[in-house]
Amino acid sequence: MTLSVNEKGLEIVKEIMDRKEELNCAVSEQGNGATLIDAGIEVAGGIEAGRLLGEICLGGLGTVRISDMFVGDMSFPAVIVSTDHPKVATLGSQYAGWVINVEKYFAMGSGPARALAVVEKKLYEELDYKDKAKVGVILLETRNPPPENVTDFIAEKCGIPASELYCVLAPTACIAGSVQISARIVEVGVHKLHEIKFDPDKIKAGHGVAPIGPVAKSDNRAMGITNDCILYAGRTFYFVTPDDDDDLEELVKKVPSSASEQYGKPFYDLFKSVEFDFYKVDPLLFSPAEVTINDIVKGRTYKAGALDPKVLKQSFGL
Amino acid sequence: MTLSVNEKGLEIVKEIMDRKEELNCAVSEQGNGATLIDAGIEVAGGIEAGRLLGEICLGGLGTVRISDMFVGDMSFPAVIVSTDHPKVATLGSQYAGWVINVEKYFAMGSGPARALAVVEKKLYEELDYKDKAKVGVILLETRNPPPENVTDFIAEKCGIPASELYCVLAPTACIAGSVQISARIVEVGVHKLHEIKFDPDKIKAGHGVAPIGPVAKSDNRAMGITNDCILYAGRTFYFVTPDDDDDLEELVKKVPSSASEQYGKPFYDLFKSVEFDFYKVDPLLFSPAEVTINDIVKGRTYKAGALDPKVLKQSFGL
Amino acid sequence: MTLSVNEKGLEIVKEIMDRKEELNCAVSEQGNGATLIDAGIEVAGGIEAGRLLGEICLGGLGTVRISDMFVGDMSFPAVIVSTDHPKVATLGSQYAGWVINVEKYFAMGSGPARALAVVEKKLYEELDYKDKAKVGVILLETRNPPPENVTDFIAEKCGIPASELYCVLAPTACIAGSVQISARIVEVGVHKLHEIKFDPDKIKAGHGVAPIGPVAKSDNRAMGITNDCILYAGRTFYFVTPDDDDDLEELVKKVPSSASEQYGKPFYDLFKSVEFDFYKVDPLLFSPAEVTINDIVKGRTYKAGALDPKVLKQSFGL
Repeated sequence: MTLSVNEKGLEIVKEIMDRKEELNCAVSEQGNGATLIDAGIEVAGGIEAGRLLGEICLGGLGTVRISDMFVGDMSFPAVIVSTDHPKVATLGSQYAGWVINVEKYFAMGSGPARALAVVEKKLYEELDYKDKAKVGVILLETRNPPPENVTDFIAEKCGIPASELYCVLAPTACIAGSVQISARIVEVGVHKLHEIKFDPDKIKAGHGVAPIGPVAKSDNRAMGITNDCILYAGRTFYFVTPDDDDDLEELVKKVPSSASEQYGKPFYDLFKSVEFDFYKVDPLLFSPAEVTINDIVKGRTYKAGALDPKVLKQSFGL
Repeated sequence: MTLSVNEKGLEIVKEIMDRKEELNCAVSEQGNGATLIDAGIEVAGGIEAGRLLGEICLGGLGTVRISDMFVGDMSFPAVIVSTDHPKVATLGSQYAGWVINVEKYFAMGSGPARALAVVEKKLYEELDYKDKAKVGVILLETRNPPPENVTDFIAEKCGIPASELYCVLAPTACIAGSVQISARIVEVGVHKLHEIKFDPDKIKAGHGVAPIGPVAKSDNRAMGITNDCILYAGRTFYFVTPDDDDDLEELVKKVPSSASEQYGKPFYDLFKSVEFDFYKVDPLLFSPAEVTINDIVKGRTYKAGALDPKVLKQSFGL
Repeated sequence: MTLSVNEKGLEIVKEIMDRKEELNCAVSEQGNGATLIDAGIEVAGGIEAGRLLGEICLGGLGTVRISDMFVGDMSFPAVIVSTDHPKVATLGSQYAGWVINVEKYFAMGSGPARALAVVEKKLYEELDYKDKAKVGVILLETRNPPPENVTDFIAEKCGIPASELYCVLAPTACIAGSVQISARIVEVGVHKLHEIKFDPDKIKAGHGVAPIGPVAKSDNRAMGITNDCILYAGRTFYFVTPDDDDDLEELVKKVPSSASEQYGKPFYDLFKSVEFDFYKVDPLLFSPAEVTINDIVKGRTYKAGALDPKVLKQSFGL
């Protein structure tokens, strides 16, 4: 793969910068030359900004479309996500795997810049992908714009000057936040498949749909609702080329969120019940509610999990 | 807001003009230089023309996507509409609020030019938006192309030369008409919220879906069917920032069409029952069938109303 | 109609060529100058490539959008197809009507080039459409790239030099194949209407939705699954202008696949039961599962057929 997720992501960042008033976003430049794009801290942002954030996170190698979706007898705005490069677009770019912790500043970094910095060494070795672009694009799910020492740090890790770094900012609890998190529906399933040792190179294309969560009153509460959109109402479809010894019939059962013992209550309630200690949350819980896998070699299709409108209703407070 | 709904709308008008054969539209110029774009009087028009008309009416500040939608056990082509500028895009532009009545000519004007002409003074004062573009774009829902004295009148009201005026024409009963009216789904809910005194500045983003109505044999009948698509099968979702003293739980109950006493029968039948006297139709009837409001400050979500497939079936004659 | 389906189709071909790595497609040039675009033989292709193949086949006169669709209690990735030129886009271009049989090479040709070659003389006379472009675009649903003598043959029939011929290749059993075949949902209904003697000029616009089939282990099996997506889960809506003596109420009943006596089992099983002899398959079976026709002159709407989730489930092996 010679495609650069940062270069492709930057095209979309530039589109946001050009249309900033229309998208209710704000653009500023730091002293070190780093560009900050605010999509929901001081500004309203919106559905379209969130959609574009989703496509940025996919490194330009996937599409996020706004649609509408039934969940039980309810219906919500939804995102439809497709990618023909699931490995690179989701694990290599979109996944929020870079813990940025500089002095007192903390944020989870996601998106293309991870493939420049390669802080997650083991993962990127496995993925066998590394971007060599001269520009970097990162999404920080945060309510606090990074100070210059943080953007300096990120740029340095990426091996680029700060002036070539574009930080897109969106808190969990904002409209664009709701959209861009639901746009992770395909990624979450690829991540789970990878966790249970299915080689992501075998996933040729991914498609998913998930409702766009209502915005919550705090980022913690929003983390609950947005996770629930995926865990209890997200649906994915993967086209895969397994090896002869892959047993997809067994594999698929392990993929959906319902395969976890912690499945069954709104994420916020679960998180509270473990005293907000992330290490007590089963990492295998994070998965779409429903997963269909099509073995395109043997021509078989396997499905597991189901939407759970009841938990979603509870989560949304409806 | 420095964005011009007329300039943005004109970009889409130009796209229609460039692709006129593909879109089954016709373009002509009047003696005074005004441009007429026919999307359904002498021409077939179509789904895509209707979609673009919807986006023109939103002043380029929203998207209209073609999709498919379940209503009960039926399913229809549908529009999905999103805007991150509900106040300006819907009330300030899309709403059909300009009564154009020049000598014997009568038509309802909607779209960007309203924000130039500001004939609806009280509304625009409240909206605190006025466009200052040097070009004007108006949609006339009519079967009669406006004669030159009418386009002269419109241009004058807009403060532009007639040569800078673009009149898009589509009767109620044509394919593009069906599409562009259903594309008002978000607008109709914003309008109703405004009618019941909810400040539209508090509506940060709107999303809606409505079936595209079959084309009727007359414009009067079409008015019935297209209204029913919204009143009995349209669904909206608003992200809002209320004040502390807004009681959204009570408010939401007043929004859907079912809050009106005249709710319950196809619009044409109702209209006929009041002897086609518009003043006898409850203005509060005009609203989406289902409305969800997300208070993004307190993180609460409220829902009222429901689709009514039975009335829709009656309306469509199925 | 002065629009050229080949010129418009070529624009999309060029887009694929420019984005070939992103779309997992391969481009090569033959000695005679013909361009081959592989979307699924030696390459992975994908959902987006399939979507673009669908739009190429429609000669650029229609849109193919990726969505998600309910079929009974299941849900699948789906295509939503719209065209405002049903006659030319579907019968004149998309329909796989050109049997290409040169020495040992055999493939069904579909897409714009058919309107240059006009091998199907009777059909094109009826359609009263012929493209005069200097470039040709053809889709071959095949696992075997055409040798030069075949592209020479195609170019000659089209009246163009081989260097102006673009052959897009996708087997039935590949991701892009699944997508582009489901994207024929509107075409299949127009074709059926034409077969039962309804003049396609009267069809002003068409809209359809169909699930994207899982990829099968062989092209024969894939032919079964992709047909089932249309026959048992495809839904269409047509806006038509009938003559006074057209009886749409009777006509619509004949359109859906269920009007055929051979309706009711997965296509592969049926095909096997007639010993894979195509001449024993009822040509009238090929039609969408559900058809709605809106008479836009008289303002009446007629519906027939229904989705059949049970057969689809069987077909998909779920």
